Amino acid sequence: METGEYVRTSAPLVVTFSAGTTGAWRVDRIDAVRGAGLMAADRLAVLEGAVSVSADAVWLLRGVVSNSRYTTRAENEALEARQPALGRPDATRAALIPIRKVDEWWSLAQDERRTIFEERSRHIRTGLGYLPAVARRLYHSRDLGEPFDFLTWFEYPPDHSGAFEELVGRLRGTEEWSYVEREVDIRLTRVLPAIQAT
Amino acid sequence: METGEYVRTSAPLVVTFSAGTTGAWRVDRIDAVRGAGLMAADRLAVLEGAVSVSADAVWLLRGVVSNSRYTTRAENEALEARQPALGRPDATRAALIPIRKVDEWWSLAQDERRTIFEERSRHIRTGLGYLPAVARRLYHSRDLGEPFDFLTWFEYPPDHSGAFEELVGRLRGTEEWSYVEREVDIRLTRVLPAIQAT
Repeated sequence: METGEYVRTSAPLVVTFSAGTTGAWRVDRIDAVRGAGLMAADRLAVLEGAVSVSADAVWLLRGVVSNSRYTTRAENEALEARQPALGRPDATRAALIPIRKVDEWWSLAQDERRTIFEERSRHIRTGLGYLPAVARRLYHSRDLGEPFDFLTWFEYPPDHSGAFEELVGRLRGTEEWSYVEREVDIRLTRVLPAIQAT
Repeated sequence: METGEYVRTSAPLVVTFSAGTTGAWRVDRIDAVRGAGLMAADRLAVLEGAVSVSADAVWLLRGVVSNSRYTTRAENEALEARQPALGRPDATRAALIPIRKVDEWWSLAQDERRTIFEERSRHIRTGLGYLPAVARRLYHSRDLGEPFDFLTWFEYPPDHSGAFEELVGRLRGTEEWSYVEREVDIRLTRVLPAIQAT
């Protein structure tokens, strides 16, 4: 059996977040913000690419680093000019915030979602104000049949914890967030050095 | 191990196209339009949802029916007003056209892709002109790590074959198509009745 070509040059990077007893990140707390939460665990491992699953995993969430869906060229350039890489040695705090939006959101047209996302909720503009302190990466999960639509990941030095709380609070108050039906907030502290700065 | 909720109300429908010796569609021809082709097979099965794979499969391609990525509300309404369901009894011809675009396409911002897709290549407007004769459905594959980005599916009555060739020819001549690096054109004839009109 074949699919014509065995290696694709630039397939989206798939990442598995594996909660259990191993991993570079210590789980400080898991809060159910809206809807069902996730089970408690001691550690979180962030596994890039095809991975074999640890037998001790309490839960697994998967997502892909895919193309942007809303940002314009000008916004992309503003983001790229300011956003730092993941894995900075001083960015020892992190948050993994899986989010699922209601069906109504997904049945909106592209222009309607963009209008709510940026013109009315200022998602991109707000996030820009917290760069470069808070590094972020978005993982897409919906097309993978996962329980969440997105896995949002943030990394920041401990002295920017206040700024991060402010960013999260501002986003949760937007019109966009009225479409969120499930959200879990997982806070983490790095206890093993970053293997890979990506 | 758990992911918090076992059933998601509206996960995108995953579909597997399985080429081999079984299935409702007879494979009339498989042409490599650009890049590597796909192996010959006698039949194609279109399998919805989680499926066990037939041992006789020559190749498998998977995709999900996901949210629209470019269409505006006005375009959605024009499409919904004209497009027929799949599985019409007289639509005994079909084409499965898997497509992969170059990395450059995926690194473009949303506004740049939209401009090429519609404002300059008139993808939606052109397709509208062939409705309701040619029913279509788009499957997204890129985030699944599949060898193609999209699986495009078209169904039409035999007396609209000429119109379908014209549609395909017009799309292949657009600026959007200059970003296509792999395309295979699989033509099919229904030999078993439609089980399910979706």
